[in-house]
Amino acid sequence: MNEFLPDEVELRDSMTEKIVEIYRSFGFTKITTPALESIENLDNSDGGDNLRLIFRVLKRGKKLEDAIEKGEPSELSDLGLRYDLTLPLARYWANNRARLPDPFKCIQIDRAYRAERPQKGRSREFVQCDVDVIGSDSLDSEVELITVTARALTALGIGAFTVRVNDRRILRDVIKSCGFGECDCSTVAVTVDKLDKIGEDGVKDELVGKGYPAECAEKLLDTLCRCGFTEDDIGTHTDPGVACAFCDMIRRARELSGGEYDVVFDPSLVRGQGYYTGAVFEVESREFGGTVAGGGRYDGLIGKFIGENIPAVGFSIGFERIYSILKAENRRAGAKKKAAVFYDDGEVVGATKLADGMRGEYDVTLVKRKKKVGKQLAALEERGFACAVFLDNPDEIKPLGQNKNNEKED
Amino acid sequence: MNEFLPDEVELRDSMTEKIVEIYRSFGFTKITTPALESIENLDNSDGGDNLRLIFRVLKRGKKLEDAIEKGEPSELSDLGLRYDLTLPLARYWANNRARLPDPFKCIQIDRAYRAERPQKGRSREFVQCDVDVIGSDSLDSEVELITVTARALTALGIGAFTVRVNDRRILRDVIKSCGFGECDCSTVAVTVDKLDKIGEDGVKDELVGKGYPAECAEKLLDTLCRCGFTEDDIGTHTDPGVACAFCDMIRRARELSGGEYDVVFDPSLVRGQGYYTGAVFEVESREFGGTVAGGGRYDGLIGKFIGENIPAVGFSIGFERIYSILKAENRRAGAKKKAAVFYDDGEVVGATKLADGMRGEYDVTLVKRKKKVGKQLAALEERGFACAVFLDNPDEIKPLGQNKNNEKED
Repeated sequence: MNEFLPDEVELRDSMTEKIVEIYRSFGFTKITTPALESIENLDNSDGGDNLRLIFRVLKRGKKLEDAIEKGEPSELSDLGLRYDLTLPLARYWANNRARLPDPFKCIQIDRAYRAERPQKGRSREFVQCDVDVIGSDSLDSEVELITVTARALTALGIGAFTVRVNDRRILRDVIKSCGFGECDCSTVAVTVDKLDKIGEDGVKDELVGKGYPAECAEKLLDTLCRCGFTEDDIGTHTDPGVACAFCDMIRRARELSGGEYDVVFDPSLVRGQGYYTGAVFEVESREFGGTVAGGGRYDGLIGKFIGENIPAVGFSIGFERIYSILKAENRRAGAKKKAAVFYDDGEVVGATKLADGMRGEYDVTLVKRKKKVGKQLAALEERGFACAVFLDNPDEIKPLGQNKNNEKED
Repeated sequence: MNEFLPDEVELRDSMTEKIVEIYRSFGFTKITTPALESIENLDNSDGGDNLRLIFRVLKRGKKLEDAIEKGEPSELSDLGLRYDLTLPLARYWANNRARLPDPFKCIQIDRAYRAERPQKGRSREFVQCDVDVIGSDSLDSEVELITVTARALTALGIGAFTVRVNDRRILRDVIKSCGFGECDCSTVAVTVDKLDKIGEDGVKDELVGKGYPAECAEKLLDTLCRCGFTEDDIGTHTDPGVACAFCDMIRRARELSGGEYDVVFDPSLVRGQGYYTGAVFEVESREFGGTVAGGGRYDGLIGKFIGENIPAVGFSIGFERIYSILKAENRRAGAKKKAAVFYDDGEVVGATKLADGMRGEYDVTLVKRKKKVGKQLAALEERGFACAVFLDNPDEIKPLGQNKNNEKED
């Protein structure tokens, strides 16, 4: 389980602030949901492997006694910690629909929990950052989500990136046009999703291993990877209406990029989750060589709680991944500079008043002077303090952090 | 379990931001700790009644099977959700001590969990806000905590309040001077703590009921409530050194109040927790007739994990209480004003560009125009939007929210 030192929390908080500020400026609103959900909802959700990783909370009192008597492990718990933010969002939306704007544009930045094995290096408590538009079937929502997410990533300072876009319906039609059957599409897509990891040969081998003809596999790889499949070719594989709307969407997202980032069609992009029904996106950081955000349209999922098909599209920003990148780069939060006011016994009132005068410009810590002031100053320097002032000489601001290489002089 | 609507989250977030900003300006740093703690640490902590309210997390896999076989309920869980932020802080400090500044001034604003009965009206998931100074035995820390907490409360807009201060050592000496024994002090203090609720007669009855002489009870009530016990009298009851330092502390905190709030000595103030060892404080809001923050010095608790006596003093701000007060008053977060840009099919790029131009001043939502624009405008007005602009008439900003009483005209 992670716990964070003060500098780390400052960086994480500043990331959250920047993300929320950008999404709010686009009219998104932040919501929070409880970390505990009913175990029935969790167990019946579309969580795949994550369902095995749920932290289950023991029943209490008489109910626990009864459950122990029954000896049935599945009866022991009534609550569980959420493993992601999608199930809570679906339940939240179903509960509060009448009181929420339509469409509902929301941000969640919150903790989720998975009982991963500690040695795996994965954290059992981690922050997810999801943004969703619920109740709109217009592809303008895709354009808006790509635009606002790209701006949030830029604000986080992750450098150059590319937004790759595909559509599940296009992918399905391409798969079918290569000789696969309608009902094979999901299975084939699962293999195509591994292209980055196992390469073209790996994909071919896996498809053949699954019992599909080698020529279908070859044709699929030709189409997706080898023949320069561009936006202009989409219409030859799929419904012209879908093709046209999809190309409009890409074109608009590209126009709004202002050349700051690329928006490209990637016919081989799958995105793992089975619940996507339309567009899928992935943001790849060039500097950090990896995915920093991903998402797509999932029209079936949110309405499950009320037995209705509710259109929805969302993006998930890789908060922990971006955090570890920024931390490794030793980025600091752009917080106010830090200053210290040194004082002696009995002078706390004067020191506070002096500090108050500096609090517009600095975050100011009071420090009681010890005999070894040099040591105290070195420790402040180590912590990134910009300057120190002594109460008995308030006009002289002593800058810190300029003689990092001369520490031995102390 | 609480979940919060967008406006509520905005208010809660703005409270958090204000609190953190003020404490940071005084050199406090924010930390976060995991919501899950080992069940041994939780069970062995000083939590009193809260220990019965711990949400226990079921073991997993083979360990769970073994535990079920044993049939021992206490063996079923290995983790639990924290019931407060003090235990996690103590463990955090013990783990990271070498990497933390000394003294360590920290803020925590985070969730805690208690398995209260749902019908009680109490929330099972709630936010606590704790600020602590660890490693300083100077009463300047008390002065600083009173000052910074008062400023945070002022920033939250809770109006006029009084800081009441006492010291456990003074209270103990007063109790003894009325004829009670050293070992009776805690029991007597528990009863004195009820003064607000059961009144002087109730306190007397309870003390007599506990077997103490009526004359001791009378003398105690005389001293604490009836004889105008002021700061000047402290020295007649307790050690002159303690009295003098305590009076200095109050005088300094009062001087730093700048007359914005009162800092008063209250000889009958107890504060429930058994772990306080010196000063105790409580902030009472006059407008809302209740306690909005409280704290004190607890030199024994933090060091428990390393078997050492570490001085510590802290304040806990009643986040949920203040939130419910502000919410009941219909306070809104001081966020940016909200605007809407109406557009038609195919115009999302132009609408986004128009909105971008307004995003310095407003948070701007794109809204696709429907046939009943009046209804759409009314819904925005309801949600507190300040104005709307139509893309086909970008120079005319239509103000909203001015004809709340004419809703029927729509």
